[in-house]
Amino acid sequence: METKVIKKIGVLTSGGDSPGMNAAIRAAVRAGFYYNLEMYGIYRGYEGMILNDIKKLDSKNITHVLERGGTFLKSARSEEFRTPEGRKKAYDNLRSHGIDALVVIGGDGSLTGAHLFYKEFGIPAIGLPGTIDNDLSGTDSTIGFDTACNTAIQAIDKIRDTATSHDRLFFVEVMGRDAGFIAINAGIGSAAAAILIPEKKMPIEDLVEKLKIRTKAKKSSNIVIVAEGGKSGGAAEIAEKVKKHLPYYDIKVTILGHLQRGGAPSSFDRLLASKLGVAAIEGLLQGKYDVMAGLINNRVVFTPIKKAIVDDKTVDDDDFRVAKILST
Amino acid sequence: METKVIKKIGVLTSGGDSPGMNAAIRAAVRAGFYYNLEMYGIYRGYEGMILNDIKKLDSKNITHVLERGGTFLKSARSEEFRTPEGRKKAYDNLRSHGIDALVVIGGDGSLTGAHLFYKEFGIPAIGLPGTIDNDLSGTDSTIGFDTACNTAIQAIDKIRDTATSHDRLFFVEVMGRDAGFIAINAGIGSAAAAILIPEKKMPIEDLVEKLKIRTKAKKSSNIVIVAEGGKSGGAAEIAEKVKKHLPYYDIKVTILGHLQRGGAPSSFDRLLASKLGVAAIEGLLQGKYDVMAGLINNRVVFTPIKKAIVDDKTVDDDDFRVAKILST
Amino acid sequence: METKVIKKIGVLTSGGDSPGMNAAIRAAVRAGFYYNLEMYGIYRGYEGMILNDIKKLDSKNITHVLERGGTFLKSARSEEFRTPEGRKKAYDNLRSHGIDALVVIGGDGSLTGAHLFYKEFGIPAIGLPGTIDNDLSGTDSTIGFDTACNTAIQAIDKIRDTATSHDRLFFVEVMGRDAGFIAINAGIGSAAAAILIPEKKMPIEDLVEKLKIRTKAKKSSNIVIVAEGGKSGGAAEIAEKVKKHLPYYDIKVTILGHLQRGGAPSSFDRLLASKLGVAAIEGLLQGKYDVMAGLINNRVVFTPIKKAIVDDKTVDDDDFRVAKILST
Amino acid sequence: METKVIKKIGVLTSGGDSPGMNAAIRAAVRAGFYYNLEMYGIYRGYEGMILNDIKKLDSKNITHVLERGGTFLKSARSEEFRTPEGRKKAYDNLRSHGIDALVVIGGDGSLTGAHLFYKEFGIPAIGLPGTIDNDLSGTDSTIGFDTACNTAIQAIDKIRDTATSHDRLFFVEVMGRDAGFIAINAGIGSAAAAILIPEKKMPIEDLVEKLKIRTKAKKSSNIVIVAEGGKSGGAAEIAEKVKKHLPYYDIKVTILGHLQRGGAPSSFDRLLASKLGVAAIEGLLQGKYDVMAGLINNRVVFTPIKKAIVDDKTVDDDDFRVAKILST
Repeated sequence: METKVIKKIGVLTSGGDSPGMNAAIRAAVRAGFYYNLEMYGIYRGYEGMILNDIKKLDSKNITHVLERGGTFLKSARSEEFRTPEGRKKAYDNLRSHGIDALVVIGGDGSLTGAHLFYKEFGIPAIGLPGTIDNDLSGTDSTIGFDTACNTAIQAIDKIRDTATSHDRLFFVEVMGRDAGFIAINAGIGSAAAAILIPEKKMPIEDLVEKLKIRTKAKKSSNIVIVAEGGKSGGAAEIAEKVKKHLPYYDIKVTILGHLQRGGAPSSFDRLLASKLGVAAIEGLLQGKYDVMAGLINNRVVFTPIKKAIVDDKTVDDDDFRVAKILST
Repeated sequence: METKVIKKIGVLTSGGDSPGMNAAIRAAVRAGFYYNLEMYGIYRGYEGMILNDIKKLDSKNITHVLERGGTFLKSARSEEFRTPEGRKKAYDNLRSHGIDALVVIGGDGSLTGAHLFYKEFGIPAIGLPGTIDNDLSGTDSTIGFDTACNTAIQAIDKIRDTATSHDRLFFVEVMGRDAGFIAINAGIGSAAAAILIPEKKMPIEDLVEKLKIRTKAKKSSNIVIVAEGGKSGGAAEIAEKVKKHLPYYDIKVTILGHLQRGGAPSSFDRLLASKLGVAAIEGLLQGKYDVMAGLINNRVVFTPIKKAIVDDKTVDDDDFRVAKILST
Repeated sequence: METKVIKKIGVLTSGGDSPGMNAAIRAAVRAGFYYNLEMYGIYRGYEGMILNDIKKLDSKNITHVLERGGTFLKSARSEEFRTPEGRKKAYDNLRSHGIDALVVIGGDGSLTGAHLFYKEFGIPAIGLPGTIDNDLSGTDSTIGFDTACNTAIQAIDKIRDTATSHDRLFFVEVMGRDAGFIAINAGIGSAAAAILIPEKKMPIEDLVEKLKIRTKAKKSSNIVIVAEGGKSGGAAEIAEKVKKHLPYYDIKVTILGHLQRGGAPSSFDRLLASKLGVAAIEGLLQGKYDVMAGLINNRVVFTPIKKAIVDDKTVDDDDFRVAKILST
Repeated sequence: METKVIKKIGVLTSGGDSPGMNAAIRAAVRAGFYYNLEMYGIYRGYEGMILNDIKKLDSKNITHVLERGGTFLKSARSEEFRTPEGRKKAYDNLRSHGIDALVVIGGDGSLTGAHLFYKEFGIPAIGLPGTIDNDLSGTDSTIGFDTACNTAIQAIDKIRDTATSHDRLFFVEVMGRDAGFIAINAGIGSAAAAILIPEKKMPIEDLVEKLKIRTKAKKSSNIVIVAEGGKSGGAAEIAEKVKKHLPYYDIKVTILGHLQRGGAPSSFDRLLASKLGVAAIEGLLQGKYDVMAGLINNRVVFTPIKKAIVDDKTVDDDDFRVAKILST
């Protein structure tokens, strides 16, 4: 594939926001300036591309954004972009600004959009993994995942205070629809009695048995972490079932919810986002199109988008084994 | 009332735990040592008094507890203490240790227990206001309330990141069954679009109208704070009703739940708890019985328990007025 | 004094910044809009008034600022404003925008400027207490003080982790040149072995004696809080002196410094700043000029600026007494 | 080398403490119980081994320690352990308890002790990398490093608030005597204007030039990160030099100091410490002696201690390159 001449690059965020998106935007824009490119912000993701909500960015736009959660370019769903007509309109808008290439920051849906757009119009596009779910291949960690894990354990630390004071059993639901990455990290990190993730089935009977053994061992409080997407149901549902077997137990449920999406990015996510933002621009200049830039073993790796979004990344078996040893 | 000679004081926490209880226990125990008293920890509140779970405390017990959430003396409900037989058993246990007086840290139910116990057995007892709800008279602020407000706004700060990125409307439910103190503080502190508290009725139509006006003013995100105990229902219920009137709006609900009870106490709560812990011991030595020690205008005030627990403390009208001005 | 008709109000921050200044600006501007006034931002304090760096504010300017530390209007020192010519130039600039009245947020120097300006040109001016030092009369707490105390204790909590692991003695210097408010709060809140404040002299011998007693009592770690402005010198100096008497002790010094000035404001400071911001506008509309709005016993009080800046507010004797009892 | 039968394992922490040490101890002890071993805590590192301050641990000892900074086993320097006589005494004490093997958590000095001890007495010993400095080979990250980076950026976030409000230049000194790992991470993560690390020399003239260019570009605030061990001197020294070239600039210095050592460990460090704690026990049972367990590319790797402590791990050149691009 030939390397095109690129002078103007558009940046957008799409899908569920994640902490570090601003840091990634900033890094891409600053790297663009470093390489004497013009940089454009496309607001509200593909929706903004269709509505022509596109603005040239200067260094002021990216001042004091690195440390903030969310995305100042905003994010939105776009039904219209799923249609060829929508994408054509979006492409025409891009061209009207003279935009040569795209940096798309988001999850699998967002990257799929970049892939389609590249295929249909040949516009050089590179994706960055921006999602708290960590469910993208081609990178050890997605931007926002580490922050979400920290947010989760800090919340669970608080919950443990009250759980211990009252000898209670808490079911805490964390995010993660298809993969239990946040759950396993937060579970190991908060000394959970059990961790329920989509990848592994744990029959209610086994869970009840485990909790009974712990009660006998006089563990005063118990915290069970539940990934929202588990096949056994959410935290409330599981708590209900467990209650039937352990009626004497004071059981509470907390669903952490959207607070896991926000907050100042962690040091890890700031570094990851900064590196990948630079890599996106350098990748485009080197003719890397239709790929996602990720960090594997601390090295930048470009993976074809189609491969990166295949949803087969699951919690490491060894992590699960360690979790088991530590919760007995 | 004559002042009794006091040599051994028992301390207990009871009811829902709140951040700063440990700091209050520590201050009471340390003040006891300062006045050459023996100090006893009664574990799990009145339940532990009945079960004779009482231990003499030394300075090691209170090392590195000030900064921790929860209560190391633990807390529990006691059905048996509600019966005269239960209280008699509790009293006998106290006497078997030679305990002369009591410091009870908790909410209205806990203080009521102290009052009854004093009335029936004449044992000098003093209460400290330990609850995140701030619903006790006789003190400007209860121990734990300020920390809970800080926990709430920090969580809402994170939620705002994602709300703003997606132009969403969030309903955030905070604790406060009978009073909207956390709601009003967190609402003003997080620039909420509206605050629903038990003290003030806000018809759904008014709320919808307000949100419509804000939408026209292009406020991109909106956060509505709901106290759990509101007559119009919890956050989920209200969100459901609003959705019918604003179907185009992307509405989400987060219930902060028990994480508001935990966490390291704030500077304010550490100071408050420390002062009141000392005041409890000095009050007992000065013959102040059947009272709650509180801080009013930064001065220690002793209020008869029966008066302190009358639940007529409500959100200040002027605070509500300010909230209205700031959310337009 | 007659009440003037006010239509346009300028807001400025001056002196050392403090967390909550943004919340105060936002509240004043929003209250201004509520009362149908035009609101102007004067950038970089009095310096910007002289340089005519003044802009009309709309609601966008105050979106998402409440929760941020610092001041988006910026702050600076102005030598020129100390001269009559400088103030004349400043006044002319104000008038060129048609600005009728001023809200000045800052410490004693900033409020003095407002007082002078009012006296010389008769322009209605109201001050708000914005300083982490809490050294202004006319208010129980200044905007930013509570946040600074929380920042201090959170830092000291971390230092205690390592102090305890190594049985070390740490001298931690906190801000507070003329008054030991942060020191006393942070000291009580972090179970300090001793607290050195400008208001009370503690001979080195007494400090050494205290530390020796604690060593005998096998307190493994000791933290001594030093207000920067103490007559016995800063933390480094005192540590040096103590080392001579306790050569076997592993002594470390940490100066918290400017991180105490920043950070998201606490719940308390957000509420305080919000109330006072509204009070400033309502005060001006009611003809309250040359005064500072403060909160005393949770009620808005207007104090003549000349009285508010008289620097006689000192740490409460009873707080000092409590600190002593708790550190034995 | 033959695999010895191991029944009793001693655990100790040594050298500067780091957040996550408690999590590593807990994981090792819990894994020991899982494999039916007896576990012993050796207090105050090698010093405690010599003083026979050794206690059998049960599950209560490791309850609620995972989330706490510091090390509950404490740490200390031991001059005596550097002598053959000291080590002999230590060995005899170990044997008197029947302790078969050792887990040593600490930095290079601590691991060297383990290596010597193994060589002299043949006692199976495994090391874990516990230091905030990240200066050990054989692991991508040391336990505590990620937390220290997070502590640093959170402090710098606060400093930036006040730096921006006053258009100031701040020199912030972070830990890292021989390596600039914290500096480079915190520098990239806080959008620093420049980062001075021991690995790279930056002449004062270049730094001044860079700051001048930024001033022209109207960057209102500048933060320069300095690793404490830089050859150009500490932050205070460099600030002094820069001041001479930029006399008009308002320059401030903050030395973060020991607060970087404390605090609740981050999610990353909790996971890392938990995995390595389990790996230490499993390694010993598999006959891996005189090695350090680390995590490379998310896999447990055992590296001979002599190789792990060779201090040649330096900041990645590519990270430094990225930092440069992002600070222009």
